[in-house]
Amino acid sequence: MGAQFTLGRIAEALGATLEGDPTRVMLGVAPLEAAGPEHVSFLVHPRYARAAATSAAGGLVVGRDVEGLPQALLRVDSPQTALIALLRLFHPEPPVAPGIHATAVVAGSARVHATAFVGACAVIEPTARVGARSMVGALCFVGAGAVLGDDVVLHPRVVVMEGVAIGDRVVVHAGAVLGADGFGYAFDGTAHRKIPQVGGLRIEDDVEIGANSTIDRATLGETRIRRGSKIDNLVQVGHNCDVGEDVILVSQVGVSGSCTIGNRAVLAGQVGLADHVAVGAGAVLLAKSGVPNDVPAGEIWAGIPSRPVGKTRRIWAAETLLPELFRKVRSLEKRVRELEGRPRA
Amino acid sequence: MGAQFTLGRIAEALGATLEGDPTRVMLGVAPLEAAGPEHVSFLVHPRYARAAATSAAGGLVVGRDVEGLPQALLRVDSPQTALIALLRLFHPEPPVAPGIHATAVVAGSARVHATAFVGACAVIEPTARVGARSMVGALCFVGAGAVLGDDVVLHPRVVVMEGVAIGDRVVVHAGAVLGADGFGYAFDGTAHRKIPQVGGLRIEDDVEIGANSTIDRATLGETRIRRGSKIDNLVQVGHNCDVGEDVILVSQVGVSGSCTIGNRAVLAGQVGLADHVAVGAGAVLLAKSGVPNDVPAGEIWAGIPSRPVGKTRRIWAAETLLPELFRKVRSLEKRVRELEGRPRA
Amino acid sequence: MGAQFTLGRIAEALGATLEGDPTRVMLGVAPLEAAGPEHVSFLVHPRYARAAATSAAGGLVVGRDVEGLPQALLRVDSPQTALIALLRLFHPEPPVAPGIHATAVVAGSARVHATAFVGACAVIEPTARVGARSMVGALCFVGAGAVLGDDVVLHPRVVVMEGVAIGDRVVVHAGAVLGADGFGYAFDGTAHRKIPQVGGLRIEDDVEIGANSTIDRATLGETRIRRGSKIDNLVQVGHNCDVGEDVILVSQVGVSGSCTIGNRAVLAGQVGLADHVAVGAGAVLLAKSGVPNDVPAGEIWAGIPSRPVGKTRRIWAAETLLPELFRKVRSLEKRVRELEGRPRA
Repeated sequence: MGAQFTLGRIAEALGATLEGDPTRVMLGVAPLEAAGPEHVSFLVHPRYARAAATSAAGGLVVGRDVEGLPQALLRVDSPQTALIALLRLFHPEPPVAPGIHATAVVAGSARVHATAFVGACAVIEPTARVGARSMVGALCFVGAGAVLGDDVVLHPRVVVMEGVAIGDRVVVHAGAVLGADGFGYAFDGTAHRKIPQVGGLRIEDDVEIGANSTIDRATLGETRIRRGSKIDNLVQVGHNCDVGEDVILVSQVGVSGSCTIGNRAVLAGQVGLADHVAVGAGAVLLAKSGVPNDVPAGEIWAGIPSRPVGKTRRIWAAETLLPELFRKVRSLEKRVRELEGRPRA
Repeated sequence: MGAQFTLGRIAEALGATLEGDPTRVMLGVAPLEAAGPEHVSFLVHPRYARAAATSAAGGLVVGRDVEGLPQALLRVDSPQTALIALLRLFHPEPPVAPGIHATAVVAGSARVHATAFVGACAVIEPTARVGARSMVGALCFVGAGAVLGDDVVLHPRVVVMEGVAIGDRVVVHAGAVLGADGFGYAFDGTAHRKIPQVGGLRIEDDVEIGANSTIDRATLGETRIRRGSKIDNLVQVGHNCDVGEDVILVSQVGVSGSCTIGNRAVLAGQVGLADHVAVGAGAVLLAKSGVPNDVPAGEIWAGIPSRPVGKTRRIWAAETLLPELFRKVRSLEKRVRELEGRPRA
Repeated sequence: MGAQFTLGRIAEALGATLEGDPTRVMLGVAPLEAAGPEHVSFLVHPRYARAAATSAAGGLVVGRDVEGLPQALLRVDSPQTALIALLRLFHPEPPVAPGIHATAVVAGSARVHATAFVGACAVIEPTARVGARSMVGALCFVGAGAVLGDDVVLHPRVVVMEGVAIGDRVVVHAGAVLGADGFGYAFDGTAHRKIPQVGGLRIEDDVEIGANSTIDRATLGETRIRRGSKIDNLVQVGHNCDVGEDVILVSQVGVSGSCTIGNRAVLAGQVGLADHVAVGAGAVLLAKSGVPNDVPAGEIWAGIPSRPVGKTRRIWAAETLLPELFRKVRSLEKRVRELEGRPRA
């Protein structure tokens, strides 16, 4: 049996104004098309208004000014924020059961908080620290001297290399590798000689990092991911990067070494930055952009090489007309030749 | 000592018509150039006909109508399908040795079939199920309530998060992460608030998933990979995607959230789909395509942004002539100016 | 307390000519801007000359002919090579402490050299071999019959599949998967049938492989990474590739099956090669290149599709002028029409 709540209880949990029967019982949350009378659904964007009108949902989370819907309505200021509360109501996060699994290998000099959890076959090396209520999932590796703050979640099989510093409420998904060596070599005429990567990696509070992503330690100094940034799966962040606050890096983004990314910038899927590039605060790079040069704050860029999006869109539009343009120019050449052939006045 | 078979035995195993000495002994399989008299080789495409003619192979798997080859021939309807049987003959898959390794950590409430194998340091969480003859490799993690069908192979160090449903004969290569959270946040003006990812992930029968690929669970409902699809290494499939039957996703493809991909579509290497894109059945996206919009069934598209391949190829051809086109237009402008300067008749 | 050295001792270690007080004590290494009087810094490129002039560093590693700097100078022939020695002086690699962790699972028929290290929960399968002074990190998997040479470092959670051969002094970062199946199927009209991947993977001496990269075994024969090549994070190398000596593959590069890459070639970030492509020795492919055809030795190529960099740069320059070109041609058409309308002489 899953959770169930009355519309009245849900309205209370969401801070919503209920228009409908407060005693009606809801069994779950579902998208507009999939919802039945036992489900609460949600209208987070006007483009789904038509789907909302025909949804069989028993209740709908909607904004304050939506009209003409037949379902019981839960009116809120921000349906998207309310959706988060709604999902957490029906799907509460299981509490962390403190304790160290018998098969975990925790060094004697490591300090694991009494309220923390360490899963099966996890390995925690000497002098590492795990904060209060933090979870180190099964098969994770936490290197020597690494520090995890409070309420951190390492999903199974995360690697935190030696000395990496992780703040509070950081979530890292399975398979991510934090603090591997940066990619630095000097070619001495005979071979690529490795430049020792002796710097660190600091992940600030409230960062989330996706599955199988890799964030390298610095050559010297620190690679840094600042507060609140969210990183998707299979993303690469190179050595000595400084990723600002509340930055979004979508899946398969590649950030070369020594880049700086300003607060609230967004890099869409498969974007690549050359090394030492600076992306300004709030800038947006559309999917697959290849970015050889700095991007000004607040601008939207796209393309390979990336340019302001309007310019890139004009190029894309013009490209499709290129074959026609070639025909026109050939025709013009012929006509001009003919004109030139006319006897002069 | 490896396996060895007579040409007669091989013909029998392949359902081939033998033209040659059935008692001749073959010691292995090799490509045309590398094969010696002790090897069986194969001609799977006419473009290799010349290499076949000069190959030192002792026997050749060929189609019914190939002519003029000096080697012993094993004639079959489909050389490529026969190649599979030939390789399996010389390299049989080792049988699964049932049993749970002493170092595996299997929850008491998990159900592992008596014929299944669980490797060293694998972790299987409460209420998970592992079907008949399935293999959970060393260092794998199978989350609470996850279900693996029969004859599944999880190579070492695969992560299956809680509740993920996997069908029969699914193969997952090392390091893949199935069912991590989708990438969903709502910006509330201050910070990116995580939208709980409470949906599931369903992998149907006969799917194969490559090393270090990541397939996210749904926000609500299910992400689904349908029967027979094959996914290469380092591929990302976002939350709520519906990947059809017999789809091919080549290495480093990125599929954003809520995409649908029709049956037998092929996405070549490093293709990226924007979210909510629908790719029609049988469509082909050439390598590195960036796909912002839907792709019709059966069409071949390419480019960034992706367009029908003929159109994209014409653009690529035209691009190389652009500098010349600029010169021509400059020349035309001069000539027209001169014509305009002529005294009127 | 970290290491500390006098300038005299540092000069000796670097083979440098010291211009300054040999008794002055240095506490660490820092970049020009971050360095204080207690740090040695370095000038590896003339573009940092200005930063060097104002650096607070107590000492500077510089080339033989640099002039006009106020700091104590450590003059060397190659500052970049000296930087490596400098970093290793202050950050020596910890020696390998031989031994097999009590929780490691090493098959009885595996041979681990007495001077090697095997970490916690590492799994080493039957008949695998680990050479002298090699490290198999925690949670690694080394498959049956795999061979690791001497002085190999497998960072935590590396997977080496069965039969993979690894030379001496190879370094593999966390999460890499070496020797998973290549991606090969034959469509038989009904389903994609897997072509058994029964070949091998050979990694030669002095190769380094980044975190979460994947290198597939061959269908038949061997995938090969030759001596001294360096591979960054999240790189894919397909089955049957032959990657030459001292090759550089930057993060997120994708190399399709059966490619050959010549010695000292460089593939920048997110480059993709189609299958069977040959990249000549010393060729350079700039970031995000899409490479459908062979690239001649020694050339620099860029773009999608990739072309010689000069050609691609001219196309990129011309693209930005396309909207203007369309205007010009429209204007020309109008003017030519007017000229054509003039009465003939």
